[in-house]
Formats: sequence, C-alpha cells, structure tokens
Amino acid sequence: MFVAINYITCKDFYREKFEKLFATRAKEVDTMPGFIRMQVLKPDDREGDYLIISHWKAEEDFRKWSHSPQFLEGHRRGFEDIAEAKRNGAEIPMKSVFKTYKVLTE
Amino acid sequence: MFVAINYITCKDFYREKFEKLFATRAKEVDTMPGFIRMQVLKPDDREGDYLIISHWKAEEDFRKWSHSPQFLEGHRRGFEDIAEAKRNGAEIPMKSVFKTYKVLTE
Repeated sequence: MFVAINYITCKDFYREKFEKLFATRAKEVDTMPGFIRMQVLKPDDREGDYLIISHWKAEEDFRKWSHSPQFLEGHRRGFEDIAEAKRNGAEIPMKSVFKTYKVLTE
Repeated sequence: MFVAINYITCKDFYREKFEKLFATRAKEVDTMPGFIRMQVLKPDDREGDYLIISHWKAEEDFRKWSHSPQFLEGHRRGFEDIAEAKRNGAEIPMKSVFKTYKVLTE
C-alpha cells in the first residue's frame, strides 16, 4: 500500500477557511482508480501543520490523480485563494509539502 | 477520534534494526483500552522520518497507554539501544517527537 501525506502549513487567518473547504470537500479523489481512503488531521498544536493522508493501492494511482483534471477541480477553491493572494501581493494563506511512504507494518 | 503520530528520526546505521523491531513488534499496544489501530510508515525519502500513527477513541486512552507498564515493555528493545549508546558515548540511534491530532474529516 502506498501512502501520500500532504503537510499543510496554514496561516492563522486562513485556518477557519481551510477547515471549511475540507468540511465541504469536492470528493473528486474518492472516484479515482486505486484510491483507498483519506483522512484530514487537525493539529492539537495550534501552530502545527494539518495532515492530509491518502492511501492508494499503488504509487502509480496517486501519480495519475495528482496530474488529473479531477485533482485541479478538487483543489480549485484553495488554489484560487492562493492565486488571489499572489495577485494582490498579500500573504500566501497556505503552503504544502507532499511526502510519500510505504506501509511498513499495521 | 484521537490520533498520535510519533515522528522517528533514525540514523542510517539503525534503519535496518528499527524496521526489524517493528516487524517483530511486541503488540503490547493492541491490548490497551481505547486502542483502534496503528500503522508504521516508511519514508520513500531515505533521509525522511518514519511515522508511527496510532488511532484512539479518546486522548485519555492514549495518555494512559503512554504512562503504562505496557508502553515501557513495548518499547524495551529500542529504549535499551538508546540507553546503551548513551552509556558508551556513541551516536544516539534515533530520536522521536510526538504530535497529536483530531480527525477533521474522512
């Protein structure tokens, strides 16, 4: 099993909006071949990163998703907020880093 | 649901041993009240941290586990390797940081 974790560093002013985006998420990913499950974790440390953890049958399934039209559609609202901040020279609301893993044991 | 992630920074020379410890883990935690599941993730980045992710019904269940005799027993072999390195003034084989989370959405 292949696991991708997206570590989201979110500015304070954007945390509420970020959580709202996920509470009403587009669920585009759920329809992708090889998708098993995802979970969004909220840090108890209020300065901590949010974690978006997705499980896939194989790495290739994840790669296909990350280059798909569904990926763009699923991230549309967040991407728009980032693009708008850049246009306005405002603070970027969030940054993300993807890291990938294999399941060693369960 | 409450989630604890133990981020393990593991020296290169100890990675094989670390993986072996988990492949033959004591499974002490599996018997604890409130324990739901755990997963150990191996980073694709060979300098990355291992992640030990455990899910619990409530934070209190995790706290009880982390102060239990079973916790010490479950970590005995790893703790011994760390203690031995300290006694010998050798390089510490691994360091760990716990972070805790709530499940925002699934």
